[in-house]
Amino acid sequence: MVKTAGIMIDARVDRIQQPDTLRFSQLVAGQKHVCQSVACCEDFFSFGRAESPFPVPDDIRVEISGKSCPGTLADPAGLPELREAVSGFYARNYNITADADRIIIGHGVKGLVLPIFTILAGSVIVPSPGWLGYLPQLRILNKPYYRLYGHYAAQYKIRPTQLAAMLKGLVKSQHLLILNNPGYPTGNLYTEKDLKEIAAICRESNTLILANEAYSLLTYDLSKFVSMGSIYPEGTFVLNGLSMDRSAGGLRIGTCILPEGSDQALKDELIKVLATVYTAAVTPVQQAAIPAYLPNPAMDAYLHDTREIHRIMTTRLAARCAAIEGVRTIIPEGGFSFMVDLNVMIAEIRAAGIQYSNDLAPAMIQHPYHIATVTGEAMMAGYDDFYIRFSATDYDGTAALESYRSVPPKTPSDEEAFFMRHGARMAAGIEMFSRWVSDVRSGSFKFEKSAE
Amino acid sequence: MVKTAGIMIDARVDRIQQPDTLRFSQLVAGQKHVCQSVACCEDFFSFGRAESPFPVPDDIRVEISGKSCPGTLADPAGLPELREAVSGFYARNYNITADADRIIIGHGVKGLVLPIFTILAGSVIVPSPGWLGYLPQLRILNKPYYRLYGHYAAQYKIRPTQLAAMLKGLVKSQHLLILNNPGYPTGNLYTEKDLKEIAAICRESNTLILANEAYSLLTYDLSKFVSMGSIYPEGTFVLNGLSMDRSAGGLRIGTCILPEGSDQALKDELIKVLATVYTAAVTPVQQAAIPAYLPNPAMDAYLHDTREIHRIMTTRLAARCAAIEGVRTIIPEGGFSFMVDLNVMIAEIRAAGIQYSNDLAPAMIQHPYHIATVTGEAMMAGYDDFYIRFSATDYDGTAALESYRSVPPKTPSDEEAFFMRHGARMAAGIEMFSRWVSDVRSGSFKFEKSAE
Repeated sequence: MVKTAGIMIDARVDRIQQPDTLRFSQLVAGQKHVCQSVACCEDFFSFGRAESPFPVPDDIRVEISGKSCPGTLADPAGLPELREAVSGFYARNYNITADADRIIIGHGVKGLVLPIFTILAGSVIVPSPGWLGYLPQLRILNKPYYRLYGHYAAQYKIRPTQLAAMLKGLVKSQHLLILNNPGYPTGNLYTEKDLKEIAAICRESNTLILANEAYSLLTYDLSKFVSMGSIYPEGTFVLNGLSMDRSAGGLRIGTCILPEGSDQALKDELIKVLATVYTAAVTPVQQAAIPAYLPNPAMDAYLHDTREIHRIMTTRLAARCAAIEGVRTIIPEGGFSFMVDLNVMIAEIRAAGIQYSNDLAPAMIQHPYHIATVTGEAMMAGYDDFYIRFSATDYDGTAALESYRSVPPKTPSDEEAFFMRHGARMAAGIEMFSRWVSDVRSGSFKFEKSAE
Repeated sequence: MVKTAGIMIDARVDRIQQPDTLRFSQLVAGQKHVCQSVACCEDFFSFGRAESPFPVPDDIRVEISGKSCPGTLADPAGLPELREAVSGFYARNYNITADADRIIIGHGVKGLVLPIFTILAGSVIVPSPGWLGYLPQLRILNKPYYRLYGHYAAQYKIRPTQLAAMLKGLVKSQHLLILNNPGYPTGNLYTEKDLKEIAAICRESNTLILANEAYSLLTYDLSKFVSMGSIYPEGTFVLNGLSMDRSAGGLRIGTCILPEGSDQALKDELIKVLATVYTAAVTPVQQAAIPAYLPNPAMDAYLHDTREIHRIMTTRLAARCAAIEGVRTIIPEGGFSFMVDLNVMIAEIRAAGIQYSNDLAPAMIQHPYHIATVTGEAMMAGYDDFYIRFSATDYDGTAALESYRSVPPKTPSDEEAFFMRHGARMAAGIEMFSRWVSDVRSGSFKFEKSAE
């Protein structure tokens, strides 16, 4: 137990990792403090914020006020009209027929994951690298989990043979596999064949799937996206929300489709736990979210345009990284992040004094590089997996969207011009990253680990 | 493990009680189903909904839309402007000086309680009867707790001698005492003397306090309310929110004042856990909430008027219950609920086939009584504590508020007329309750426990 100002903190809290957003802001604040002391006025290259830079679509709107807004609690399963709208949305976009009874609305995706973890018996299989949302929740719940490591050769995706081998070694009980598709932070995409192979293994071994598809509508070639909910409907909890594709993280709307054939008991237990943890999602925000799920040409145009801009910005930034000698980059197929793998230069990294993957971020933000990223634990990488997440979000989304709408880039050279007009700052950041890599490789960079 | 449609539910979920709102709606729905089958068209007397019937104040407003609303995530500690406003609010209303750094905003009070339970070492002492919010969260976290039983003689409040005796019997470690003031569901009020005695015991025995003061601004004689945060500042987490006094449960805004002298580590851990469980409270709703905490005559008038109406409706309803022979009723000093204690007629209750306090609600809703209440587990009563919670909320709050504003009742007979004009339905419900009590006492009532 840690004693803090007379108040004792529970020991398990120590093992709960900080969410990446918190870690990132502390990293930047810390270095800014250091830089101030040496009178450095240069700005930082911000690749850490995994939030869409666009404004929320116009149709997501509601006036919260005494006259128009009910102060009453929503049904903890979610507003019926919203669940109906989500049901239609899944039929139109994902080839999934799920009536409103199978849909639950939560306070963001995290607000759905914790109740699912709580009610399901058995252990959880968490892919690494991945989204950090899962591990700290599992630790709060003291729930057993296993990490499934991805590798460059398979684009860091879950490999069916590896999954089968892992499941063979586990107790013959129920398990829950986490599947992020498109992958995060890699932006890789599972093919229908991938999904079918994984589903077959899960079916055989009594393994459920928690499919986090929060980036699915940001798949650059939408026709390539297949939902696990359509492949393994009887065993998949399909999660999604408005944070990524509708740029509305602050509204905290998450949706869950329960496995086909789930009985009332499962649903009751899930809702009971959700209501116990935080009562329900905010009532008027659920009302505001309804238009996001109804057929609406303006919403389709928003999704199309922002998806295209994400593609231009993210793939062009990733391509610049891929050109840097000594690192490996996966060009993403969706979303607004990608991953750089430094394991090929591990000897030079260690020689520079960077021992653990958690040290990468503090090493890269060091003066004069100022490259703000997320590494190590923050993306569930092992301590010796030197991965970096770059988010291509440091530009004025409103300006980029207006510019795209007035003159949509048509050719690759239009796109390059668009990228340089809006993303010049990010391009400069990648040049700085290239310099950092080359300094590490030449032995001229030394990591000065701060005392704290 | 429970198997449901092939999916196994974790055993601990069985021990997590259903939130009272869920239990209540299922109770009513179930009986309506039964009544339909016998072609009963009568309505129910609804005493179960612990939600204020008033509209949200006009000044709590924000337009969520693409243009005005940031989609970005809020600081998990809460919007700085909102925390500033809450700080001022506490200085003005509660005699508590806490700067914004000591204030954390959560997704409702529940969304603050769970992180506090998670980070604090040691066990929790939960008063019974009380709010059901705590116990199911403690069970999700597998955290040790003890129940502290209240008795009629002390208005069901925590008695210092009993608390001291309990703490003497516990391991000499850190504990956390739950204190609801005004009490829930009783509406009882702790005096400054009560609070000082409890604080002295807690100080001596390394016991922190979680003071849930959600009903404090609904104390009928506001001058009588004292916050535990002003008596035991170094050891109290003060919780409050907009659900009760601002009738805005659906907005899910909760506030926490950390103990005075809390260090950064405590705050960091709390925010880490909050962000892990559900990221943050909704950004635009936090913006909407700011005016609720700023000096504002309209908000003061709203609080005054709704408080007065709650007093008229709730105390008059409770007084009618107190007049029923065979039951004990505490006339509340705040809030919109009160408690009826049937333990004095326990022999007759058992003879009627009601074995456990959980059976009371299904027994009272039975045809032809149709009295919908919350009993037993739903208010943390022991299985042999036959308590009923009555909420005085089944009236048109908008109409009552308008009527109060146009002609404020001045004399007791004005108030009685006001009560009967707006609360006739509730008065009829209490008459029915009186009939039920008399039927139980005369032996003419038999509880028909349903098969499920």
